[in-house]
Amino acid sequence: MSSTKPRPILVMKFGGTSVANVERIRNVAQHVKREVDAGYDVAVVVSAMSGKTNELVAWVKDAAPLYDAREYDAVVASGEQVTTGLLAICLQEIGLNARSWQGWQVPYETDDAHGSARIASIGGEGILKGFAERREVAVVAGFQGIHTPTGRITTLGRGGSDTSAVALAAGLKAERCDIYTDVDGVYTTDPRIVPKAHRLDKVAFEEMLEMASLGAKVLQVRSVELAMVHNVRTFVRSSFDNPAQPMPGTLICAEEEIMEQPVVTGIAYSKDEAQITLREVADKPGVAASVFAPLAEANIVVDMIVQNVSADGKTTDITFTVPSSDYARAVAVIEKNKDELGYTLLQSAQDVAKISAIGIGMRSHAGVAAKAFKALADRGINIRAITTSEIKFSVLIDVAYTELAVRTLHSLYGLDAA
Amino acid sequence: MSSTKPRPILVMKFGGTSVANVERIRNVAQHVKREVDAGYDVAVVVSAMSGKTNELVAWVKDAAPLYDAREYDAVVASGEQVTTGLLAICLQEIGLNARSWQGWQVPYETDDAHGSARIASIGGEGILKGFAERREVAVVAGFQGIHTPTGRITTLGRGGSDTSAVALAAGLKAERCDIYTDVDGVYTTDPRIVPKAHRLDKVAFEEMLEMASLGAKVLQVRSVELAMVHNVRTFVRSSFDNPAQPMPGTLICAEEEIMEQPVVTGIAYSKDEAQITLREVADKPGVAASVFAPLAEANIVVDMIVQNVSADGKTTDITFTVPSSDYARAVAVIEKNKDELGYTLLQSAQDVAKISAIGIGMRSHAGVAAKAFKALADRGINIRAITTSEIKFSVLIDVAYTELAVRTLHSLYGLDAA
Repeated sequence: MSSTKPRPILVMKFGGTSVANVERIRNVAQHVKREVDAGYDVAVVVSAMSGKTNELVAWVKDAAPLYDAREYDAVVASGEQVTTGLLAICLQEIGLNARSWQGWQVPYETDDAHGSARIASIGGEGILKGFAERREVAVVAGFQGIHTPTGRITTLGRGGSDTSAVALAAGLKAERCDIYTDVDGVYTTDPRIVPKAHRLDKVAFEEMLEMASLGAKVLQVRSVELAMVHNVRTFVRSSFDNPAQPMPGTLICAEEEIMEQPVVTGIAYSKDEAQITLREVADKPGVAASVFAPLAEANIVVDMIVQNVSADGKTTDITFTVPSSDYARAVAVIEKNKDELGYTLLQSAQDVAKISAIGIGMRSHAGVAAKAFKALADRGINIRAITTSEIKFSVLIDVAYTELAVRTLHSLYGLDAA
Repeated sequence: MSSTKPRPILVMKFGGTSVANVERIRNVAQHVKREVDAGYDVAVVVSAMSGKTNELVAWVKDAAPLYDAREYDAVVASGEQVTTGLLAICLQEIGLNARSWQGWQVPYETDDAHGSARIASIGGEGILKGFAERREVAVVAGFQGIHTPTGRITTLGRGGSDTSAVALAAGLKAERCDIYTDVDGVYTTDPRIVPKAHRLDKVAFEEMLEMASLGAKVLQVRSVELAMVHNVRTFVRSSFDNPAQPMPGTLICAEEEIMEQPVVTGIAYSKDEAQITLREVADKPGVAASVFAPLAEANIVVDMIVQNVSADGKTTDITFTVPSSDYARAVAVIEKNKDELGYTLLQSAQDVAKISAIGIGMRSHAGVAAKAFKALADRGINIRAITTSEIKFSVLIDVAYTELAVRTLHSLYGLDAA
């Protein structure tokens, strides 16, 4: 006699490299079976087989450089569709009930921002019915949605499958969302730089958000935001483990769930930065806007912005960073507007790196950043600019010192594994 | 001021080799533009890029030899989806309004015979609205449908895109359905065998049906049946022509439209035949069923069946043909049931060919077949078996005489080009 109590729901997500071919898809099926055997009702969100999306995008761009985003969506969404069917078949082959769900079948209702649509609501009644009636694993196409008023296929933008998974977990009220990827969790910093870096058991949503936007390429920023808003406990774990003996991974969760919060949780870095400083800009209302509006119009993302209090009340210096690849364009935009901005000198540096320390514990601990400035100075590392927020601070330094600075801060905050 | 009179509707269909890459898809777009410029509202039905369906099918079979046909459909339908988006973009690029339509969007409602679904009804209101409001070319995925009660993707079976096109032409009440392929029309026979074979301007539906099922691989049999039932005038023409100067092709239409119907329209042949003869089978009711039911159960398609009137009222001989590839299995099935069938001798021949002459004019002309028997005998060709219908007759001969027999009949009925 089966229990009438509903089983807990688990959402699992596998990216492109985890489903790169049929052999790997079979391995994914084993991961899913383990969780079904453990008593979960499982929805699996999958990406396109790795390389497929790039192939499809290349065809679209060949067809027209300025393509219709609605047709782009129809073409590229086909990649995820293939994976769903193949995984459903592999799951059936090992004795599970399973069926594929395309974005329009679930449905994932989105707005009509084709190519980067936002999810408005998620259906999922059919998936829940399959859980209840047949214990059927739902194999869901990530990345896709439907704009219901027009009935057209939408996509969430590159990397959107993480977002699909977290949104589904929120919609189905899942106990957890497990994101399987090619790393086995979130680390205190890049282990290639600091061999003593260690995997974190738990990270708070806010911290992960800072890490994701700072270049720890484990999770899409959007998916972390969504997880935070809907309080979806999200595990990052490796799909390349032996499915029978999976490794623990890292849980991204509310800070309340983390008993002993260290002051600093991780050190992130980004080398693709270029710094631009404008000297003696007129210190009047609206000057910052007049600098950054033309850059935004040119689709250049400005990251750090530092503006000091003016010494003489008349002029000030503004420093900001842009991605290295946009450096030349950014300088051109600024120089074109020189008359309006009225700066006396444009100084720039391309060989800069941004080092950040992230930790919710900073909120309640004074002097965390000051400690870092001293440690860096002791090693002869010059700090070009500083920005801080409630739970992180970032310093801009010469790129040559990146590894030394990361190792210094990693030790300083007690993150080196024993 | 635009006329309020609706424009005539044209359905165009392009197969896999015609859309094999973006370059060819651009060529297809030019064919479409020509017809839009000529004043038609156009719906284009497309197949998957050639090779894609085979790749997808191989993955499915790798995932599981006995796969779920519903998931097979989800996987393989993705091929057509890609082509629709790419063609829509190429059409927009040359200044036409265009959008893609998947099977579930049109919708093509089908039964749930996944992998070989039959079309129950076609929507198309959205397509007609696009014609009326924006003169928008509809780029429709062939081969696909949706089983509405379950909301799942279906496919019509291999080659189903011809059927999709003809069904759409019937549903939209199109003036014509143009099937673009890699040949420039229907010929009186295989030009590789008879250099004097010529392209037919017009063929009656019934004739084309016989030709399609007899191995002239121009059109899917199902699509010709559908065209006949709904009286859809269907053109077979070449997609490799210069779009600016297309060749005429062959029109498949009602016989009333063909003014001077020749007695014989074409000569077809099939070399993949094996013949089995059962001697002295008991001549009693139900004996034919007892021979053919076990073959049907074994999924062996029996083609020609010849049973003579019994000479002594007690026993008879039964001859039939099966595809060469099924020959060994067919013999095994028969021998297993020898006791029940009670034949005295099983004779067989694998090296046989079937030659057929097709023509609606046969209905009103006596002695058409008799003329052929004499001509073949004059050339020393032995006829092993004969079957006839209202508009065709077929003879079974040694395969070595195939070309000679085809050429003989082609000349005999005046089909050699001047």
